[in-house]
Amino acid sequence: MELLKKRISQSGKVIGNNILKVDSFLNHQLDVELFQAIGREFQRRFADEKISKILTIEASGIGIACITAQYFHNVPVVFAKKFTAKNLNDDVYESKVYSYTKGVSYLIRVDKNYLQAEDNILIIDDFLANGQAVLGLLDLARQAGARVAGVGIVIEKSFQEGRELILKENVRLESLARIKSLEENKITFMD
Amino acid sequence: MELLKKRISQSGKVIGNNILKVDSFLNHQLDVELFQAIGREFQRRFADEKISKILTIEASGIGIACITAQYFHNVPVVFAKKFTAKNLNDDVYESKVYSYTKGVSYLIRVDKNYLQAEDNILIIDDFLANGQAVLGLLDLARQAGARVAGVGIVIEKSFQEGRELILKENVRLESLARIKSLEENKITFMD
Repeated sequence: MELLKKRISQSGKVIGNNILKVDSFLNHQLDVELFQAIGREFQRRFADEKISKILTIEASGIGIACITAQYFHNVPVVFAKKFTAKNLNDDVYESKVYSYTKGVSYLIRVDKNYLQAEDNILIIDDFLANGQAVLGLLDLARQAGARVAGVGIVIEKSFQEGRELILKENVRLESLARIKSLEENKITFMD
Repeated sequence: MELLKKRISQSGKVIGNNILKVDSFLNHQLDVELFQAIGREFQRRFADEKISKILTIEASGIGIACITAQYFHNVPVVFAKKFTAKNLNDDVYESKVYSYTKGVSYLIRVDKNYLQAEDNILIIDDFLANGQAVLGLLDLARQAGARVAGVGIVIEKSFQEGRELILKENVRLESLARIKSLEENKITFMD
């Protein structure tokens, strides 16, 4: 998606060889007009699927998921919540996610009322790096017996293992910008 | 806002005399079509203001803020992030917020790049109860020297002190549904 790649090149900040800071438009300050273009592009890519629900994770996935849902006939958005302590009731689907960035595990949780076996789910997130959050969301959807139509990612760091891990799960993955490298303080895209 | 009140009456669940659970449409599963109606209503109420930015707080404010921004010429949304530890750099505005629900204080933070003295800010949140989160957001906006045009709330629990505390700050407050009481397991609205 050229518009997005252009924006990343203009406004993204590289820190070390690994971190891409895009908080001026994607995950702290949010460019809603860009989100609309992102939503339309996700719709174009998943036009052959009858999506019934969008599943994402707090916090930075929520805005993108809500704007995107408008281009899928206003399907409901469900966001998984993050917790540090195990839950004691069984009204929720729960999965463990390891954060490489923070070096700790946390739990993600969705109320069982909001994921159904009949659902055809599109998983949306802002970033794909090691893929652990998306694998956790996949796990929640599968616990519900739902079908996952695919995963839509805004920025994929293709030099990390997330992409491979998701494809290994036989799930369709659509990343709107794929980054090959952040080395030497330079953003290089795939292709 | 009648549509919203109707939805709260139909789908809200009262727990004790104090808690209103609306996670089927407002803060866990998100009804994007309802959010559009909410966004249009905020626009109608603040039509006399030239809003330059919407400020909210993670996580459940983000979806409403993004959908609402579309009715304000796609102004940027900025969400304050929550932290438990004090920051050591001075690139951020920071404010302390006490959570009555959890009985602990946390810090909210916005990068100084994303709030400007020229901004005319609309603060948006899903719930108003004790008002501490909104007071924290007001504090961040004022640290930046920005003007706050007003506060837009989806559901106000009018029997708690939040409303009074915000009005004391001389800030305009628009709540789309005002709840007078949750006593005896019944949702009673103001008026």
